[in-house]
Amino acid sequence: MLKNYDIVIIGASAAGITAGLTARKYYPQKSIICITDVSKVPIPCGIPYVFGTIGDAMKNLIPVENMCKANNIDLVNDKVIKINREFKLVLLESNESYGYQKLVIANGSNPIIPTIEGTSLENVFMIRKDPSYLTTMMKQIDESKKIVIIGGGFIGAEMAEECRKRRLEIEITIIEMQQHCLQLVYDEEFTILAEKALIDQKINLLTQEKVKKLVGHKAVEQVILESGKIVEADMVLLCIGCSANISLAQEAGLRIGPTRGILVDSYMRTSDTDIFACGDVCEKVSFFDQKPSNLKLASIATAEARIAGRNLFENKRKMEGVIGCFSTALGGLAFCAAGLTESQATAKGFEVVCGVGESVNRHPGLMPGAGNMKVKLIFNKKDTALIGAEIFGAISGGELINALSVCISQKITAENLVTFQAATHPALTASPIAYQLVNAAEMACVKLN
Amino acid sequence: MLKNYDIVIIGASAAGITAGLTARKYYPQKSIICITDVSKVPIPCGIPYVFGTIGDAMKNLIPVENMCKANNIDLVNDKVIKINREFKLVLLESNESYGYQKLVIANGSNPIIPTIEGTSLENVFMIRKDPSYLTTMMKQIDESKKIVIIGGGFIGAEMAEECRKRRLEIEITIIEMQQHCLQLVYDEEFTILAEKALIDQKINLLTQEKVKKLVGHKAVEQVILESGKIVEADMVLLCIGCSANISLAQEAGLRIGPTRGILVDSYMRTSDTDIFACGDVCEKVSFFDQKPSNLKLASIATAEARIAGRNLFENKRKMEGVIGCFSTALGGLAFCAAGLTESQATAKGFEVVCGVGESVNRHPGLMPGAGNMKVKLIFNKKDTALIGAEIFGAISGGELINALSVCISQKITAENLVTFQAATHPALTASPIAYQLVNAAEMACVKLN
Repeated sequence: MLKNYDIVIIGASAAGITAGLTARKYYPQKSIICITDVSKVPIPCGIPYVFGTIGDAMKNLIPVENMCKANNIDLVNDKVIKINREFKLVLLESNESYGYQKLVIANGSNPIIPTIEGTSLENVFMIRKDPSYLTTMMKQIDESKKIVIIGGGFIGAEMAEECRKRRLEIEITIIEMQQHCLQLVYDEEFTILAEKALIDQKINLLTQEKVKKLVGHKAVEQVILESGKIVEADMVLLCIGCSANISLAQEAGLRIGPTRGILVDSYMRTSDTDIFACGDVCEKVSFFDQKPSNLKLASIATAEARIAGRNLFENKRKMEGVIGCFSTALGGLAFCAAGLTESQATAKGFEVVCGVGESVNRHPGLMPGAGNMKVKLIFNKKDTALIGAEIFGAISGGELINALSVCISQKITAENLVTFQAATHPALTASPIAYQLVNAAEMACVKLN
Repeated sequence: MLKNYDIVIIGASAAGITAGLTARKYYPQKSIICITDVSKVPIPCGIPYVFGTIGDAMKNLIPVENMCKANNIDLVNDKVIKINREFKLVLLESNESYGYQKLVIANGSNPIIPTIEGTSLENVFMIRKDPSYLTTMMKQIDESKKIVIIGGGFIGAEMAEECRKRRLEIEITIIEMQQHCLQLVYDEEFTILAEKALIDQKINLLTQEKVKKLVGHKAVEQVILESGKIVEADMVLLCIGCSANISLAQEAGLRIGPTRGILVDSYMRTSDTDIFACGDVCEKVSFFDQKPSNLKLASIATAEARIAGRNLFENKRKMEGVIGCFSTALGGLAFCAAGLTESQATAKGFEVVCGVGESVNRHPGLMPGAGNMKVKLIFNKKDTALIGAEIFGAISGGELINALSVCISQKITAENLVTFQAATHPALTASPIAYQLVNAAEMACVKLN
């Protein structure tokens, strides 16, 4: 049976639901439906916390049903198997189909499975956005003694910490190809601090090591590294990133971009102007040089969704490219970054000037909740605009990084940052004399002088 | 005896020391001296916390000696009694004098004593930036049973909470002229939340009440209100603000501004171009309409000091006017504001459009440390630029407000804020779908549409 909707959205995770909510605000008369192939949608960034802090995959859900109900958006739990652009409809696994005026593809990404032997052995898991899969995985963690995590990026590091929270007695090892964990997001001095937070929790780090294969009889037993080392394992987690779910779009003849995402313009339109895409599934360009970027973040997904949802019937908002704003907490400390690291900026050909500010985030330092906070700012020497920032330390850094994300998006200069009037308070922040962000900018100004 | 310095700074609190540190960075060869009339300089914003959380005035000091030593700045504990502009020297109480090439006046402000009867009775105190005075005051708090605080602004509210922390059993009453405490900084809905935080700590609030006089034999016994009410008191704290210490400047013939501060230009130069002023002592204009502003904040003082210190021998930095960024914590909750409140903006003649975003600041909401956070944004309808922001709730609001202070200084529009890429994380912030700042901006965009 065919039903017609003004707006059909494929996916109801961060991008899909945000596109729907945004569309509802600007197009109150339009009919909207969200189609999701999982009956319960996990909060994507919350997944690692399911295993330790939260302890239950069913308590880490986006309240999709409530959001849809409150905003007059229909919701169906089914799988889109085909997009028919000629007749402007999508066909579902249940054999139903929905006609659309405007279609939003927001069906996200899937974990990458490395092309090595042994990934289909039992007890080899990846991070799937599916509560029932996560529940099975949690049971396996409870039965394991030696967990090996392949990939020391955010998810790998967070998974390691949460497995440790769940199981104090077991062996946990991260294997990372790069010299340091989290190296794609932080400069070396910050990665060392992050690694220390992991090591302090008795998590083994094997860096500069590449996995050759996984071996075992029925279930995984060993991880064989290219260096010849062998790591014993009764459970392996693959945390090496995600790839966009482009098959639907590809089969429908939509153009695919260089990082294998659905190609979109700055209005988030695909090569078919009645079809928009947003979130992990779509191609992105860097804010800094408009070159392809393969960043996949919920914060980017929702920003794109707010653009797509707004633009469905008129071009109103534009995407200027992805800045890349990350944060995590390891060992109770915040690790945050926005924009380019110093090494990324240098690799992109920018000549940079950096400044660092470090201070306790209370004043005086014996106020309750005081902790160290370090801020590094990276400026483009040419125009002195801020192009990157990293924060380590107190948890409130998780909000301060967003001050810096705004600054980057506004191309604020070092001089502008030095004289900016920061609200400071003994119980909340560093003193105005020691305020890290301003002092980091001042250090850069001195070098630029 | 006369000693010559390139740079003489009067005052070593937030403004004076920051001017000195900034000057040292840009003028490494110049000789610098700071002259302070208190041997120990309190952290000004930390003063209320001396009485409860910290418990000792000597533990709330700016480490002025160390800062000066580490930066090759001389420091002398003496009082400047005269500025001789003709010979470019300052005369001290000790009879020494210092010649200057450039002088920075940063001698701050003093508590206002209201022109009512009885302020010189015993046990009537004000908030003086002097540790020995504060220590005497603390002893008196320990001997009091009924403390009345006149003035329900920041200092009054913070003093009330800290007196309560120190003494659970006593009566504490705030008397405030306006309809609500903190009304000069927050819109009504936020003042009500702040008042609730105070009432929850059994602090009595008497609002819309003006004090007529203080009466008593030797020590204060009663506060008589103009309404006829009588409030029993064995200690009174006057918390009604500060006035600039302009007498030195006035006697030296420097021009004084409409709010009784030393008049300065946007480079922080007084009417004598070899004399700069910064901090509470100098006149300010509003960022929003360049009209006189009597805001006195450490965050403004340090911003001005970074401008003055930089500009001593060349005009490099400009003050664009004060934005007004405030934060406090009451009952463990952050109350923060930047720029204009809705009512202030309206009073200044702006037509405004507001948006509110409210959500738990973790995702999912059962992550540890979760608390509610509410963000209100005030946009100028004419150009849709952000002109004000208020935050209530979780402590990390103390850093988020600075994201908004930057946005105000950059005149960011509602549309720009909606599509800004915010770093979000389960353990640090709201989810990207629910991120308060973005959703508040979206609500304003819908209204502006």
